[in-house]
Amino acid sequence: MKILLTNDDGIRADGLAVLWSELKKIAEVIVVAPDRERSATGHGITMDIPLRAEKISLFDDKAWAVNGTPADCVKLAVNCLLDDSPDLVIAGINRGSNLGVDIFYSGTVSGALEGTILGFPAIAVSVTEYSDPDYRYAASFMSKLVPKVPEANIGKDTLVNINVPSLTAEEIRGVKITRLGSRKYINSFETRVDPRGKSYYWLGGDVVDNNDNREDTDVACIQENMVSVTPIQVDLTNYRVMDSLKDFFDDLSEGQRRF
Amino acid sequence: MKILLTNDDGIRADGLAVLWSELKKIAEVIVVAPDRERSATGHGITMDIPLRAEKISLFDDKAWAVNGTPADCVKLAVNCLLDDSPDLVIAGINRGSNLGVDIFYSGTVSGALEGTILGFPAIAVSVTEYSDPDYRYAASFMSKLVPKVPEANIGKDTLVNINVPSLTAEEIRGVKITRLGSRKYINSFETRVDPRGKSYYWLGGDVVDNNDNREDTDVACIQENMVSVTPIQVDLTNYRVMDSLKDFFDDLSEGQRRF
Repeated sequence: MKILLTNDDGIRADGLAVLWSELKKIAEVIVVAPDRERSATGHGITMDIPLRAEKISLFDDKAWAVNGTPADCVKLAVNCLLDDSPDLVIAGINRGSNLGVDIFYSGTVSGALEGTILGFPAIAVSVTEYSDPDYRYAASFMSKLVPKVPEANIGKDTLVNINVPSLTAEEIRGVKITRLGSRKYINSFETRVDPRGKSYYWLGGDVVDNNDNREDTDVACIQENMVSVTPIQVDLTNYRVMDSLKDFFDDLSEGQRRF
Repeated sequence: MKILLTNDDGIRADGLAVLWSELKKIAEVIVVAPDRERSATGHGITMDIPLRAEKISLFDDKAWAVNGTPADCVKLAVNCLLDDSPDLVIAGINRGSNLGVDIFYSGTVSGALEGTILGFPAIAVSVTEYSDPDYRYAASFMSKLVPKVPEANIGKDTLVNINVPSLTAEEIRGVKITRLGSRKYINSFETRVDPRGKSYYWLGGDVVDNNDNREDTDVACIQENMVSVTPIQVDLTNYRVMDSLKDFFDDLSEGQRRF
């Protein structure tokens, strides 16, 4: 099995190294990851500067550091760097959770998503602790899951988003299949004034996990010290509202659908 | 009606100006947009440097240029710059189409998406021509649509993605409610060698609209010279595969869901 491994914390991040150490026991692992931290890049890609891929002496010499985003890394790996297609694309282990609406901002999820878009099975994995994360259980979990992925009926156009509590195996209460929950960020910006009297704004924000997070959500699952596994789809069409939109445009244009 | 207007081509882009000229006839329009082109930024947000918002003498002095992404612009506008909440967030008019999988990469869609995430009705609008786009019909279409948006039953957690052909009103054949189609990019990178003998890679890519784009897709709609209106959902959970994933994990752990 050939695994393409990326992340958004950068190629020298601990989470990547811990995961690589486990995966290399069971598969050929090629690392193509950003040369520096690229968190919160969403699904950005680099079009205004050319990309560079530097081969580095880490990970058994099967590693490139790229001056781009996680999506760039996966695109470049598949199109230019790898000899053969990967069997699986993995992004992580991310430092900090990627729950609910976080997935839109997450570079880690974006790396996996690019794998899905290119037609490969893909998994994003995060540990839900930022300050002093313990990646060991998440890495061991992945090493047990990965050989079974070909048997999982995940379906095309779907990636798997996994969040793992920063706990020991004994403390973790199991695995749950979840839907995306609801999180809101409050106090999003801290406004400061520079020495020249001009305002600037630091993006920050405290997370509020809404009360409407019932037990089948990823947010609630993590609070219960369980591993959360959420299937994420690439087709974002909201099929449910298509009919009401049709009626709306018919009314607006008196059935002509012309303005 | 108070409209927050952003884009990803930058605050001085023609598409934004043409749309503003139409919208200001029917609403109060506040422009908060990137200070330079920020295409293909996906849903990136800026956490490593502070944001600056410069008030500029354009758009009846109701305009800020921000050193961030479209998502940054909408977040900062709502949290720090605007006195009141907007009734509607609009991103565009983008230069070039945002169809199918493009929406993951698009800064324009991301601007609208941030509006949806923050709880406001939101529309992304693009003209499907890059080299010499005609924004006039798209702007006039928006000025007819916008006053009716409060009546449209779009639903929370859904944004509307509109693509308009670069044609005159006479040439456009109507409006269609669509689902996201399938597009693939081939020849994604052009590899070059710098004067010092090192390789670098320009992201490019020719688009291939797949044959599986039936008439209800946005891709097919544009080929028919019609305006495409696609509802996009924020909840990316793939509910259909949740059960098969549950079975998979049950089998994997012999019903214990523990590894």
